[in-house]
Amino acid sequence: MKPLVKTQRERMLKSSALRYHWNKSIPMDMIQTASSDISWSHMGARASDAVIAKLMADAINIPGILSLAAGFTDNAVLPAQLIEEAVSELTHNVSSREFLQYGTNIGRQGLREQALQLLKSNPGEESSQLTVDDVFISNGSQQALYLAAQVLCNEGDIVLVEEPTYFVFLELLKGMNLCPISIPLNSDNRIDFKTLTELVHFLQARGEWNRVKMIYLIGYYSNPSSRSLSYDEKKQLGLFLQKLDRKIPVIEDAAYRSLYFDSMYNVPSLLGMPEWESYPVLYTGTFTKPFSTGLKVGYSICNSQPWLQRMLRVKGHQDFGTSNFSQAIVERVLESDRYQAHLEKIRAHYKRKMLLLDAALREGGVDKNGWSWDVPEGGLYLWLKGPDHVDTSMDSDFCKAALDEKILYVPGDLCISGNKKKNYVRLSFGALDESQLTEAGLRFAKIAVRFS
Amino acid sequence: MKPLVKTQRERMLKSSALRYHWNKSIPMDMIQTASSDISWSHMGARASDAVIAKLMADAINIPGILSLAAGFTDNAVLPAQLIEEAVSELTHNVSSREFLQYGTNIGRQGLREQALQLLKSNPGEESSQLTVDDVFISNGSQQALYLAAQVLCNEGDIVLVEEPTYFVFLELLKGMNLCPISIPLNSDNRIDFKTLTELVHFLQARGEWNRVKMIYLIGYYSNPSSRSLSYDEKKQLGLFLQKLDRKIPVIEDAAYRSLYFDSMYNVPSLLGMPEWESYPVLYTGTFTKPFSTGLKVGYSICNSQPWLQRMLRVKGHQDFGTSNFSQAIVERVLESDRYQAHLEKIRAHYKRKMLLLDAALREGGVDKNGWSWDVPEGGLYLWLKGPDHVDTSMDSDFCKAALDEKILYVPGDLCISGNKKKNYVRLSFGALDESQLTEAGLRFAKIAVRFS
Repeated sequence: MKPLVKTQRERMLKSSALRYHWNKSIPMDMIQTASSDISWSHMGARASDAVIAKLMADAINIPGILSLAAGFTDNAVLPAQLIEEAVSELTHNVSSREFLQYGTNIGRQGLREQALQLLKSNPGEESSQLTVDDVFISNGSQQALYLAAQVLCNEGDIVLVEEPTYFVFLELLKGMNLCPISIPLNSDNRIDFKTLTELVHFLQARGEWNRVKMIYLIGYYSNPSSRSLSYDEKKQLGLFLQKLDRKIPVIEDAAYRSLYFDSMYNVPSLLGMPEWESYPVLYTGTFTKPFSTGLKVGYSICNSQPWLQRMLRVKGHQDFGTSNFSQAIVERVLESDRYQAHLEKIRAHYKRKMLLLDAALREGGVDKNGWSWDVPEGGLYLWLKGPDHVDTSMDSDFCKAALDEKILYVPGDLCISGNKKKNYVRLSFGALDESQLTEAGLRFAKIAVRFS
Repeated sequence: MKPLVKTQRERMLKSSALRYHWNKSIPMDMIQTASSDISWSHMGARASDAVIAKLMADAINIPGILSLAAGFTDNAVLPAQLIEEAVSELTHNVSSREFLQYGTNIGRQGLREQALQLLKSNPGEESSQLTVDDVFISNGSQQALYLAAQVLCNEGDIVLVEEPTYFVFLELLKGMNLCPISIPLNSDNRIDFKTLTELVHFLQARGEWNRVKMIYLIGYYSNPSSRSLSYDEKKQLGLFLQKLDRKIPVIEDAAYRSLYFDSMYNVPSLLGMPEWESYPVLYTGTFTKPFSTGLKVGYSICNSQPWLQRMLRVKGHQDFGTSNFSQAIVERVLESDRYQAHLEKIRAHYKRKMLLLDAALREGGVDKNGWSWDVPEGGLYLWLKGPDHVDTSMDSDFCKAALDEKILYVPGDLCISGNKKKNYVRLSFGALDESQLTEAGLRFAKIAVRFS
C-alpha cells in the first residue's frame, strides 16, 4: 500500500468523523436467564435497552412526573371531534361496512391518493411523476423504517445517519445488529462533504464500504434537533451519491414536515429534486404527529418499485395490512378541508408551547450557564447543548437529579451514534399543558444550572 | 454407525412423515431486476409469492368475482353500531383524550386484563396463575407469530407445523427462510407419536435436531381444516415434549376459539393443562375475527417472561405499540356484555352460512364425486379433499376453470408444508352473503364435478 494512502488512513483514524464507532461491533448480550432454557435467535439473544418503551411507560405510570421526554403530541388538541364525526359518517353515510373489514396489504387506495396529494402540494413537487402505486400505508412511519432496513441490511451492515438522529431509529438498528455511522457535519451544522469523502475512502480502504447499505436522513424539523436539511445540502448530497460506484438507498423521514410554526420550510423533498432523479429514495410521512398518534397510520412514498415491492412482501408477513378502520378515518378527514384546518390550529398551538418552554428555560437561567439551543421553526423539540463537562446520560447524577425533581428528558447521547457526546438533552414541548410546561422548564433549569 | 440405525434411517427416509421437505432448502430467488442496482439483504432478495396479498387484492378488485378464498368475516355482521357507540362514549364520557394518544408498547392495561379474563372464562382455565404481565397486544395475532419467529429462529432453522396449517404462517416462514416440517398424523387425523418419535430420532441422527426451534399448533377450528386439537393429543404432546433434551417453544393459535357454532369446544388451551406446566407456550388470540378485522387488534398470552420480553423488544422497534385507538374501542366494548351478545349473534350467523355452503356443495354433487369433508363445529372454513388425481394448485387447469367461473378458493397445497398434496381446497363461508354463498358453492361444485 502506498505511503500516501497509509498517511491518509492514519489521519482518518484521528478525524472527528471517525470517532463514531465505525468499527465498533454492537455487543450481543446473551441473556440466558436461569429460568429459561430456550434457544434464542441472534435477534432474540441481543439485549436492547428498550429505552423508548421505558420512557413511554414512565411517562404514563409515574404519578406527578412531568415528562419533557416522550415525543407525545398534546392531548388537548387531539382531534376527538373530527374522529367522532368521521366514524359517524362512515357508519351512516357509507352503504358498506368495508371500513371495519380487512383492507389490502398496501393500504387504502383513497388514502394513498391523499398522501400523494399532500406531497404534491409542496412547492417544487407539484409536477412529480410519482403515482399512487408508489405509496403504501404502514403502522406509523416506524414500521416503514423497519421494513426498509429488513430488505436492505443483513446483520453487521452499516447505516449512515445524521448526528444527532432519531433515537428510536438507532434502537431499531441495534436490534438488527446494524452499525450506525454519523455523516460528518461542519461547524455550520451542515454536511461536510470533504470529510464525508474521506470517510468513504477510508471505508473502501478497509474493505468496509460494501457493508454500507442505507442512509437515513431527517428532512424537516428533526427529532431531536429540529434542524431541517437545506436545499444546498440535499442537492450536494445527491450529486455526491450519484458519483459513487453503487446506489445506496436513502430514507428521508418527513414525520414533522407539516408541523411548521409560521411558514412552510421551502425545500422540496429528495423525491422532488432533479439531482436525486432515479436515485432510490423512501420518503416516510405520517398522520400520527399531525393528526392522531393513537391511530398509528403512516405513509411512505418510494420512487423504486423493486424496493417498495420487497417491503410490501415483508409487511404481508408481519400483519398483511395496517388497521383499515384507522385508515378509513384519516381518509375521510383528508377528503374535506377539516384536515388542513386542524393543522393550522395545532401549528399555532405548538409554536406557543415552544415559546413557553423556551421562556421558562431562560427564566431559569439555563442560557446563562453555558447551555445553548436554536429556537426551532417547527417540530416538537428543543435540542440543548450543555457545557462539555456535563453528563446527562441515563445513569448520570444529572439524570437522577431530574428524576428526583420529577421530570423526564431524553439524554442526548441516545440520539448520537456511539453515544459519544453526553452533554446534550432533548426536551419535548408536545405533551405537557401550558402551566405544566413552564413548571417543567423551571425544574429542568434548576438541574441544568446546578450541574453547570 | 450400527446397522440397526442405518436400517432405521433408511426406513425413515421412506416414511410418510418425511415426504415433507425436511431437507428441502427454500429457494432464494435473487430477483435483481434490470432497473435496480440496489443491494438487497437476504430477506429482501428472497422472492415470495405474496399469495395472501394477491388473494386479498383479487377479492377486492375483480368485479363480479365471488371469493370463497379470503378469510374475511361477513360485513353484514361487523359491529358498526357497537364501534360507533364506543367511539362516542370515549369522546364524550372520558375526561381525557388519551385514547387518541400513543399507548404503551405492551398494550392497554385494561384490554390486557380483559383478554386474560377471556382466557380464564374457559372451563379448566379459571385458576390460571397467569397475570396481566403475561399478556401483550399486537397488530392482529399475525404480528405475534412474526415476533415469535424473529426471536426464536435464525435463517435455515426448522419449525414443526400441522398438516394442513395456516398458509399465511407458511409464507411467513418462507420469508424468513425457515423450513416447516409437518407433524405426522395417523389415520384418525390425530398426532402419530410413534412416527413423531422416529422423526425426532431421524433429525438427531442427521444432526438437524438442534435446528428445530419452534412448534406451531392451531388449537381450535383450524384455518384451514376446522380441526381442533383433542384433549388427549394435547396431553400426550406435552408429555412427549417434556421428555426431550431441550424445550422447543410452542405457539397455540386460538384465533377462532370463540367462533364455535353450538357449544364451546371443551378442551383447555395448553396454558391450562398440567402436562404443559413450565413449558414455554405462546397463546395467540385475536379480536379481528370475532369482532372486527378492520381494527387489527390481537392479543397474546405467554407463560415465559423471557420469551415475551424479547418479543416486546422487537415490537418496540417495529412500531412501539399497536393503535391505541383501536385498542380503546375493543376495551370499551369488552367492559360491557355487548361483546358476548355480539359473539352469540355471529355464531348463529356463521353456522347458518356454513350449512348453506355445505348444502350447495352437496346439491351440486361434490360429495358424490369422490370429494369429502368434515362438517365443522366452528371457524370459517370447509376443508375439502378431492380425488387423488385432482390438482387444485395455483397454476392448475382446475384453478383456471374456477377463475373462468368467477370464483376464488384457496388451493389446499398452500396450506401443506412442501406443497406435496394438490387435491385439497379451502373454502371460506365468511365473506359472501347468503345468496352469493349458495351461488359460489354451486359454481365450485360445477368445477369439482367436472375435474373428478
